[in-house]
Amino acid sequence: MSKIVMKFGGTSVADIARIRNVAKLVKREVDRGHQVAVVVSAMAGETNKLVAWTRELSPLHDAREYDAVVATGEQVTAGLLAVALSAIGVTARSWQGWQIPIRTSARYCSARIVEIEAAFLNERLAQGQVAVVAGFQGIAPDNRISTLGRGGSDTSAVALAAALKADRCDIYTDVDGVYTTDPRIVSRARRLHKIAYEEMMELASLGAKVLQTRSVEMAMAHRVPVRVLSTFDADNGGTLLCDEDDIVEKNPVTGIAYTRDEAKITLLKVPDQPGVAASIFGPLEDAGVNVDMIVQNISEDGRRTDLTFTVGRAELDRALDAIRKAAPQIGYKDLISDKGVAKVSIIGIGMRAHPGVAQTMFKTLAEKGINIQVISTSEIKVSVLIAEDYVELAVRALHSAYDLDAA
Amino acid sequence: MSKIVMKFGGTSVADIARIRNVAKLVKREVDRGHQVAVVVSAMAGETNKLVAWTRELSPLHDAREYDAVVATGEQVTAGLLAVALSAIGVTARSWQGWQIPIRTSARYCSARIVEIEAAFLNERLAQGQVAVVAGFQGIAPDNRISTLGRGGSDTSAVALAAALKADRCDIYTDVDGVYTTDPRIVSRARRLHKIAYEEMMELASLGAKVLQTRSVEMAMAHRVPVRVLSTFDADNGGTLLCDEDDIVEKNPVTGIAYTRDEAKITLLKVPDQPGVAASIFGPLEDAGVNVDMIVQNISEDGRRTDLTFTVGRAELDRALDAIRKAAPQIGYKDLISDKGVAKVSIIGIGMRAHPGVAQTMFKTLAEKGINIQVISTSEIKVSVLIAEDYVELAVRALHSAYDLDAA
Repeated sequence: MSKIVMKFGGTSVADIARIRNVAKLVKREVDRGHQVAVVVSAMAGETNKLVAWTRELSPLHDAREYDAVVATGEQVTAGLLAVALSAIGVTARSWQGWQIPIRTSARYCSARIVEIEAAFLNERLAQGQVAVVAGFQGIAPDNRISTLGRGGSDTSAVALAAALKADRCDIYTDVDGVYTTDPRIVSRARRLHKIAYEEMMELASLGAKVLQTRSVEMAMAHRVPVRVLSTFDADNGGTLLCDEDDIVEKNPVTGIAYTRDEAKITLLKVPDQPGVAASIFGPLEDAGVNVDMIVQNISEDGRRTDLTFTVGRAELDRALDAIRKAAPQIGYKDLISDKGVAKVSIIGIGMRAHPGVAQTMFKTLAEKGINIQVISTSEIKVSVLIAEDYVELAVRALHSAYDLDAA
Repeated sequence: MSKIVMKFGGTSVADIARIRNVAKLVKREVDRGHQVAVVVSAMAGETNKLVAWTRELSPLHDAREYDAVVATGEQVTAGLLAVALSAIGVTARSWQGWQIPIRTSARYCSARIVEIEAAFLNERLAQGQVAVVAGFQGIAPDNRISTLGRGGSDTSAVALAAALKADRCDIYTDVDGVYTTDPRIVSRARRLHKIAYEEMMELASLGAKVLQTRSVEMAMAHRVPVRVLSTFDADNGGTLLCDEDDIVEKNPVTGIAYTRDEAKITLLKVPDQPGVAASIFGPLEDAGVNVDMIVQNISEDGRRTDLTFTVGRAELDRALDAIRKAAPQIGYKDLISDKGVAKVSIIGIGMRAHPGVAQTMFKTLAEKGINIQVISTSEIKVSVLIAEDYVELAVRALHSAYDLDAA
């Protein structure tokens, strides 16, 4: 007998028929003798509707009210799934974040889970009652409802699994696992049977949408075995997130991610002197803009240089505004921006042991005539910024170059 | 400076534009220097949608899950109205039932408010913050969300007004007050400027849909001055619910109510002996059927008699079933039922002082050729059961007979 947490996303509970299907999947685990806690998202479309209403009333809405409104989506699904379970003979009850409680920080709209009181829930699980928990939410120190940010139900599930000391956390979604890359771009993409937490974290933060980055971070921190599998084909496939040591064969590259959510900013002829970086990135930080990749050209005359960096596409206007306001302090000659860029990344823990992995990437892209605009690396990934038009070509070429294509 | 509770029903908050309109009405009271608490219903249609989902999953759903699902409708409106108020410069925050808390009984789906902790809310009101409270709900002793039954937001508002010791409770709805009868049937129906609590309670329980019966009961018990007025024409009209003593001119009849939600059951030739009533109404009570009007004919031979009573139309099948099962104990000869009946009632506190009021009713109906099937009376009302086809005719005739027609 195991204790498992099952999580179902918005498309898995999109309508009454699908909620009934989810109930069957839960019943199957109960029939196998497992203790089961279920975390649910809002029915597909509901969260968007609630967000749209709030924004229509005021773009500058209070984050606490936003959270109180938006959190109802998951509360509805939790109640409905509990009803669906009872209807097929499974003892179940719904739990809202404040009832457990799931305590979070006071940072509304993107709160972090601080603590989950699991004792009472564990007691109920031991009695054979299925706990259906509203995902994406908790209760902040001032007794108001907080949400964890979009995709936060993944994090709810992993945090709950950690708190309950569950044997496994199964994330049911609309794809049947984690792939070597986006199958919509590369038809020969392969599903991975296992992936290391570190790799998944890079994949998620570099553009793969299958799991929220924060949830992977938490799974890694608490060593929660997480499985990603399909609600609509639960018996097939699945990918297990696990410890690096549990993966015997470490390929140099495990997966390829990309994101179009990028914009590039270049400052021409900024003074090549100490303090100039601070004069640029300080104002951006104050404006709440996250800077990603940075490259500084070698100064030709030792006095002036060009500086390029990337920001999220949605933050471009805010970033340009902040820089223009700080122009006197920075002292640049010209400011150029480009929304037509994308970031392509190769990820793999095997990179540590295999030299020359980055070189294969650069060579492959060069052969296809793709210009690399910015490069950034870490121990287990290499990211390059390229013109957006070349994304598909680049991903397909790299997928072949690293022997990831399915037979 | 007064402290007031404003309540807005589902049609008043049906969409974003209407929520903005409600925010303006609230701001007006704030600008007048009042302390304001607002109670809101779910956006029109939302509750029905949530109820339909729950029923689709299981007709025998757990009442606690039903409540958790259905209560989200009001939670959404409360958050949205708080956002709308902030957007026009009014300090506001939303409150869910469990946050205040509004403590209720454990009778889910039709819980009764036991206690509202008003101290903290009063503190906020005194600071000038508008409290936007989700209506229709509270928290039961086991820490789960409970609802008060359909129309329960009226009761939330009156209970809140009582707890806050508010000077007034304004119920904003889609009609501009309480009328002498249904204006859709009688074009010359008049709006009442004042109505006594007792009269309103009879009107509400006998078919007038303008206020939930329980809310009137509570207003009377706590002597809360309640005004009914229109969201869409807030400056015009309105009806004040008040103490009998505050009404100077007491007409014999204040209003005429009707309901088609009736069914009649007749048991032919039951034994005319002690205990027979118990043998009939015991099984009905066990089946959860509410019996309304009862009439027992005079026995012709002293041994057998006919017994007629009414039940809610929705409960007819359940009632017949219970009686058939108890047939051996009752010993009737035949069982007849009729769904084609309606109840018409005249209500007025002046009845106590004016003899002959009922006689006018009987005479008026007789003149129109309308047969009275059952009669029931109380100190301030007379109800008759008639064939449903005659409802409009009966109401119009009575409206004229009691001099209620507008000039």
